[in-house]
Amino acid sequence: MPPSPSRRKVIRTYNLCLLGFGNVNQTLLRLLQRKNSELRERGIVWRIAGVATRKMGWVANENGLDPAALLSNNVLAQSRAGTPAPHDVREWLRLAKADVLFEATSLSPRDGQPAIDHIRAALEAGAHAITANKGPIVHAFEELRSLARAKGRKFLFESTVMDGVPIFSLFRDNLLCIHLQGFRGILNSTTNVILSGVEEGLSFEESLVKAQELGVAETDASNDIEGWDAAVKVAALIRVLMDVPIRLEEIQREGISKLSEDVVRAARAEGKPYKLVCRAQRTDQGVMASVRPERVPLSDPLAWVAGTSSIVYFETDIFPGLAITENNPGLDATAYGMLADFVRAVKET
Amino acid sequence: MPPSPSRRKVIRTYNLCLLGFGNVNQTLLRLLQRKNSELRERGIVWRIAGVATRKMGWVANENGLDPAALLSNNVLAQSRAGTPAPHDVREWLRLAKADVLFEATSLSPRDGQPAIDHIRAALEAGAHAITANKGPIVHAFEELRSLARAKGRKFLFESTVMDGVPIFSLFRDNLLCIHLQGFRGILNSTTNVILSGVEEGLSFEESLVKAQELGVAETDASNDIEGWDAAVKVAALIRVLMDVPIRLEEIQREGISKLSEDVVRAARAEGKPYKLVCRAQRTDQGVMASVRPERVPLSDPLAWVAGTSSIVYFETDIFPGLAITENNPGLDATAYGMLADFVRAVKET
Repeated sequence: MPPSPSRRKVIRTYNLCLLGFGNVNQTLLRLLQRKNSELRERGIVWRIAGVATRKMGWVANENGLDPAALLSNNVLAQSRAGTPAPHDVREWLRLAKADVLFEATSLSPRDGQPAIDHIRAALEAGAHAITANKGPIVHAFEELRSLARAKGRKFLFESTVMDGVPIFSLFRDNLLCIHLQGFRGILNSTTNVILSGVEEGLSFEESLVKAQELGVAETDASNDIEGWDAAVKVAALIRVLMDVPIRLEEIQREGISKLSEDVVRAARAEGKPYKLVCRAQRTDQGVMASVRPERVPLSDPLAWVAGTSSIVYFETDIFPGLAITENNPGLDATAYGMLADFVRAVKET
Repeated sequence: MPPSPSRRKVIRTYNLCLLGFGNVNQTLLRLLQRKNSELRERGIVWRIAGVATRKMGWVANENGLDPAALLSNNVLAQSRAGTPAPHDVREWLRLAKADVLFEATSLSPRDGQPAIDHIRAALEAGAHAITANKGPIVHAFEELRSLARAKGRKFLFESTVMDGVPIFSLFRDNLLCIHLQGFRGILNSTTNVILSGVEEGLSFEESLVKAQELGVAETDASNDIEGWDAAVKVAALIRVLMDVPIRLEEIQREGISKLSEDVVRAARAEGKPYKLVCRAQRTDQGVMASVRPERVPLSDPLAWVAGTSSIVYFETDIFPGLAITENNPGLDATAYGMLADFVRAVKET
């Protein structure tokens, strides 16, 4: 739906800083270019005022870096063209005059660092903080939410669960006055691709390679295979949507590494395949949650969610079963979640 | 998620007017009572300042009618206790000092009346207009949207498709800068209950009685069985989400009355059951849309949507397949959509 005419009047330019410049933030930059005119209709003009990677260090220019040069991997040339090189995230944000930080460093499930420090620095510098990284939600959600409120900025993270599908904003903006009792779903693509591959006759190893070729699994896929990635997502949903500060250790977690290929294929042949199922249920004591391989009947939509697709069923006081399914997302999906967070952040402040 | 503390400061009382007092608005009134404290936390206090039914006429009292008396069907007593009886919708809204109209009269698929007049009257009187009636969307969406904008009020209709599941607000508030290319789904409960019943061995007649007992089908179920209800929903989704002013006659429409019981059962036994499938696809010429019985394979989630459940798959430029499923909604669901529209309307103005 196009925005209503009244929103089109004031146009403002925002300085964006990209922390990490791998798949996610590169795709985000291309998407920002593609959606340029629609953003302008909403009063939003942007420039990339900072990029940082482990290899290149902190690159900042408050007047804007050239997106084409960045995408052709010419970050060093950009660096020379810019202001003096900053030494850390705070100096980088300051020199870039950052309005928005897009945090897309790798997940560290155990402590959420260094992403938490980056987000804290952005909020303290008066910038909105948008992350595709689940770690900060699980390890510092309440602190970062308070900090964002105190600073009048937004801390948003739509891309952390189900790519950029609007799960968090659905509950925040649309499912008003609703109580979430629990949920059940498939939230990790790597294990889903592996199980689908094994059912089709590949070995675990071959399936993993396939997942890596699809860009779904990382070189070290143990976070996925052992259920850490899914558990972190479950914890994020519980903390944010159920307002219960659950710790990662409280989530029962079992990966798919103990399943044999024969067992996986036999289960599918019997019409009750294995899936790495995520669950959470509110109880008198708080929330019970688990991630583990479960056999699901074919009458259950979870049985049909294959490859990189994902699904989550929410049980609420109004809707007994409200499901969101995402089929075959491309790389755009995660980047889109960050772009939508950007629009939300500037619209609401 | 609880609202942020900053929203809790100002408390305002809203005068609500219920037009129609059947299942939907009675359930809405009970839900308003149940969600009273959460609404107050959002700064919203309400009173019922008007109720109108064909039998009782226009009942208004700007100081509030007694909900308990209304729910015990004591509308006449309320009427006597109120201000002088109004003669039409405009006088009723004026005497009730209406802030919000909840329009829940029956669907008239051919012209959308008298609901369109009611909504026009509300907006012109400076009240928000919230409807569970699809007719006004199909026959007067653009006019009513413009009128609402001109008056600085909201015209909202979340309950018209998939009960109160936030479809329209999802696209409006969350799927920012997204282009909808098409959709596919099951949107009519009566035909779905009938087909499920026939598959389980009931006759068409018995299944229809079952749907009526469930409160899903009306006494005259021809609007459902001939595909009118589904076609009106398809038209509403196209007009609002795809911004194409399609007319109802442009939607290819075929109901389920030509299917025999044997054919329906054989199709299910063969693993490719019949469903009344809704479709829309953007083309160079506009939008192609249809409602008709289609056979769907079991690998398609549509095949598993039984009884009163519903589903819709959206194809967008970012998400190739984003599905929303609603399983076994209760009466609360439709009323909830109107309550959520109420919160949205007063939050945004």
